[in-house]
Amino acid sequence: MNNKKPDLKNVDLKVKTYKEMNKEELQREVANLKAEYKRYQDMDLTLNMARGKPCHEQLDLSMGLMDALNSEADLSCEDGTDCRNYGVLDGIQEAKELIGAMMENSPDNIIIYGNSSLNVMYDTVSRAYTHGIMGNTPWCKLDKVKFLCPVPGYDRHFAITQYFGIEMIPVPMTPTGPDMDIVEKLVSEDETIKGIWCVPKYSNPQGYSYSDDTVRRFARLRPAARDFRIFWDNAYGIHHLYDDDQDYLIEILAECKKAGSPDMVYKFSSTSKITFPGSGIAAIATSLNNLEEIKAQLTNQTIGHDKVNQLRHVRFFGDINGMKEHMKKHAAIIRPKFEAVLEILDRDLAPYGIGDWTRPKGGYFISFDAPEGCAKAIVDRAKKAGVTMTGAGATYPYKKDPHDSNIRIAPTYPSLGDLRTAMEIFTVCVRLVYANKLLGEME
Amino acid sequence: MNNKKPDLKNVDLKVKTYKEMNKEELQREVANLKAEYKRYQDMDLTLNMARGKPCHEQLDLSMGLMDALNSEADLSCEDGTDCRNYGVLDGIQEAKELIGAMMENSPDNIIIYGNSSLNVMYDTVSRAYTHGIMGNTPWCKLDKVKFLCPVPGYDRHFAITQYFGIEMIPVPMTPTGPDMDIVEKLVSEDETIKGIWCVPKYSNPQGYSYSDDTVRRFARLRPAARDFRIFWDNAYGIHHLYDDDQDYLIEILAECKKAGSPDMVYKFSSTSKITFPGSGIAAIATSLNNLEEIKAQLTNQTIGHDKVNQLRHVRFFGDINGMKEHMKKHAAIIRPKFEAVLEILDRDLAPYGIGDWTRPKGGYFISFDAPEGCAKAIVDRAKKAGVTMTGAGATYPYKKDPHDSNIRIAPTYPSLGDLRTAMEIFTVCVRLVYANKLLGEME
Repeated sequence: MNNKKPDLKNVDLKVKTYKEMNKEELQREVANLKAEYKRYQDMDLTLNMARGKPCHEQLDLSMGLMDALNSEADLSCEDGTDCRNYGVLDGIQEAKELIGAMMENSPDNIIIYGNSSLNVMYDTVSRAYTHGIMGNTPWCKLDKVKFLCPVPGYDRHFAITQYFGIEMIPVPMTPTGPDMDIVEKLVSEDETIKGIWCVPKYSNPQGYSYSDDTVRRFARLRPAARDFRIFWDNAYGIHHLYDDDQDYLIEILAECKKAGSPDMVYKFSSTSKITFPGSGIAAIATSLNNLEEIKAQLTNQTIGHDKVNQLRHVRFFGDINGMKEHMKKHAAIIRPKFEAVLEILDRDLAPYGIGDWTRPKGGYFISFDAPEGCAKAIVDRAKKAGVTMTGAGATYPYKKDPHDSNIRIAPTYPSLGDLRTAMEIFTVCVRLVYANKLLGEME
Repeated sequence: MNNKKPDLKNVDLKVKTYKEMNKEELQREVANLKAEYKRYQDMDLTLNMARGKPCHEQLDLSMGLMDALNSEADLSCEDGTDCRNYGVLDGIQEAKELIGAMMENSPDNIIIYGNSSLNVMYDTVSRAYTHGIMGNTPWCKLDKVKFLCPVPGYDRHFAITQYFGIEMIPVPMTPTGPDMDIVEKLVSEDETIKGIWCVPKYSNPQGYSYSDDTVRRFARLRPAARDFRIFWDNAYGIHHLYDDDQDYLIEILAECKKAGSPDMVYKFSSTSKITFPGSGIAAIATSLNNLEEIKAQLTNQTIGHDKVNQLRHVRFFGDINGMKEHMKKHAAIIRPKFEAVLEILDRDLAPYGIGDWTRPKGGYFISFDAPEGCAKAIVDRAKKAGVTMTGAGATYPYKKDPHDSNIRIAPTYPSLGDLRTAMEIFTVCVRLVYANKLLGEME
């Protein structure tokens, strides 16, 4: 968490919070906000903060990737493999080394896949569904399969489990990770619980990172189900915003091995938010036993993934240091955007005592909690003024936020100017919806 | 089929076939062949004709692909989409147009996937297995699912169905396609038959192309199963060996539509043997109803495939004419290899009345039928002299060739010199194994 305090020097400290306002004050507030909202509507804007997409300046950082290989280049690996031809099911050695360094795992524990870690996660669930894990009953043959879903969380994780008819059980997130008391209890008691979705570092949407204690408790889980697996989506492992103030995450494979459960975790990552989303390389890191099982399936699914693109990434970065330097350039572009979001929330909402939000030190999102029962109305209002947010509820399984409160803010894609405008519209919407709600309660 | 007659001018026309030889003559033959075989063994060769892999001269043809995009290039589509970012689930429009022209389908009927059509086929079977087709029971919930498998056929097709526990029923291939009397009868009577694997043009391994009548009978199938689908793997649609003598295949989607069964076929293709295997683009072409169902699943599996690589292929080829010119260069490289194989088979085996083989006008393989009961022994012998062939039996479901006869010859990968040596060793092995077999029968 970013510990910088809200900058209150421009704020009228004598302002009343909405809860302190009487009916008349609130009515005056609503009238002012409506006028302001109308002004924005008349501007006919189209601004998008819905998805964690890099902006074009970030994409420009990787244009050198297009020159990393050319028609004069030798497209052979260090071991002589011609990357242009068929073969190499699990990825070329130098890509395993690069991605291994990125994931903090041995190259021996890695399979390099195609362009999408989401695809790897889907295929991992699908394989468990069709063929089971290590001799256990395939999930499609069971009456009931459940997953734990720390909430708020990542909508595309929930979409995969929902698609396979897996029942999702929400578990509350805290600033140190999922509530481990609940996780431990459920996992040890219920053998229909087969997995848990985790974004352990700079979590989606909060930007929280799991504490050492949380990771150690994960590694020491004693699940009732022998085929329980932790789905560890380390999407933002090296996606820091600050050079000097970064979160640190204990490496889970090593920790599971130490705890005597080496096979309990599948770890996923990709270069989607490092080079080009959709044209990067994705990977799984897991135990040798799990790898063997995966490869026995993978050999039926493909002859091999795109080795030329693997080589392209290796030649572009050289090694992990090249990649880390590259990430600093990303940070320089998106850090001001995160700071602008926080500045506007601090300025426009904090003084009125409205909402809570996180202050991440990395990743792609800021999590905003509106007053209970307001999120849907806020997102709708913003939409009608031309600002697209992630749908309210999207951060919960089945898109059902029981408090109708959480909204994911994705600051990276718009320009800084557009982002400021979008956030100013957003805070007007938050205030308007909340003031109206309080007025309604006074009737 | 290539109708050129074997060139017999160098052949002693008075030679006896093995069947005409008496015991003494066969013994003399075996002694000579053993000496010849020993001579090859002493050469300590390592030659590989196992897989349909392009040779490096073929790969060199596509090196321009590496220059099609560079760091100065605009990586936007014609519609303005930035190919570097997330999005576009079903492929960029210009890639759909290029691949549509290649597949002879409308861009509207196409989804562009990742690097492997095998992966698309696996995912298509997997989706039917986990979720069923158009509201029908998922195959994983059925007691029995069967596929028809024209034989000899493609081992990787059979591997997918075997992996999903689907029972495979062999159907004999003929020079005009699968025996349609059998296909029609089985498909119309047995509702557990859910699919059939087809390589309709320059088939793997024979190089046969389905006749107009065969394709029309396919389109007019009246399956007992509502979720029966034809898996039409048109891997070699534009992979001709000759400019002036090409097979022609009726387009199956149009034919199915005409016959009132627009949804009955999934058609697959890729650029794997056009640019780089493993670094090309793959696609499915099918009806709008099927596409809708596929996209409803795909949206859970990925945010999108590699659009940069799609754009790279479009910029490299320009259009289908560029692709067709490119294929002529492939043909110029591999045609002499096919001709060398046929020349050596014609020279070394035809006069002795041993075996049968196909004379394809395109594709990647020649199918060789050894005398019954000889294929395994021939492949073993070849292996011991340093020549790796596709495993005997590989062209049949469960790797079981009931006649132990079929051997797939893949001429493209070795150099012409190596190929000639490998084929000369192969024919020595064929003769030796067969002569020994005849001698054994005389005991």
